Amino acid sequence: MNIKSLYNLSNGMYIISTKYENHFAGCIVNTVTQATPEERPKLIVIVNKENDTAMTMQKSKIVNISILSKDADMLLIGKFGFRSSKDFDKLEGTEYILGKNNVPVITEKSVSYIECNIINEIDCSTHIIFILEATNAEVLNEEEVMTYEYYHKVVKGKTPPKASSYNG
Amino acid sequence: MNIKSLYNLSNGMYIISTKYENHFAGCIVNTVTQATPEERPKLIVIVNKENDTAMTMQKSKIVNISILSKDADMLLIGKFGFRSSKDFDKLEGTEYILGKNNVPVITEKSVSYIECNIINEIDCSTHIIFILEATNAEVLNEEEVMTYEYYHKVVKGKTPPKASSYNG
Repeated sequence: MNIKSLYNLSNGMYIISTKYENHFAGCIVNTVTQATPEERPKLIVIVNKENDTAMTMQKSKIVNISILSKDADMLLIGKFGFRSSKDFDKLEGTEYILGKNNVPVITEKSVSYIECNIINEIDCSTHIIFILEATNAEVLNEEEVMTYEYYHKVVKGKTPPKASSYNG
Repeated sequence: MNIKSLYNLSNGMYIISTKYENHFAGCIVNTVTQATPEERPKLIVIVNKENDTAMTMQKSKIVNISILSKDADMLLIGKFGFRSSKDFDKLEGTEYILGKNNVPVITEKSVSYIECNIINEIDCSTHIIFILEATNAEVLNEEEVMTYEYYHKVVKGKTPPKASSYNG
């Protein structure tokens, strides 16, 4: 098995955010996929079980997805991708708004966002596949999106330790 | 809800293929995502329930994924994206090899492929989320991959009627 074959899968770069009681959690993922084209589309997002964001999502049943723009910098990506929400307030110094669901949506270096209810979760060994239903979505600007490939090749970014993929 | 927000999700372009008894089925999808970085990585692929490929996958429990290159043409994409395997032999005139699992792998205009066992399937209204475990993967060449964005913007391709997404 040549694992490099999987490096050719195409992904975007997203910040997901959630809140349970007074605890905010958020992180970088590259695993958001649209599942259905319904009026309230279903999506999936895959998050590492050990991630504070995954654990908080399991309680809150809500997640907001921000789609990052090409100019997202390592300060923002580092904050959300390489630190834990458990012991660090990632909202501090980050541009965000409150979604219609009252959960923060990161708007910094983001082109659009999707607010979702979590309607199911599937165990997948080290990760959890969350099945989502969009409840609101807005476009913020017309900037180009950051792909995972661009992040690796141009930004020269590394893969966070709990990511779903190998690449980098 | 501004559904255009979802157009910013990044995806690749893939041909999935399967075989049950003597029946071959395959189609274009943009919904392949790596779920875990294990030795035998887990992946997901989302396919419309009414698709002959989905129905054949449910019986065969096997699917092979070919990652398309940028030069994949509308002849190939049209054959796999806009016709049904039910009444048409998509292998006719298509370059393919047999995988280690004895199921055809499309190699035409493909940069690499992944052979998978289907280990679970989750109902998601119009679609099925298949959870996969990679059993083999090989790189075919170093061509650039085709993204869904490139397919829309440069190839000017349309979205097949049973796709997971709206874009186009």
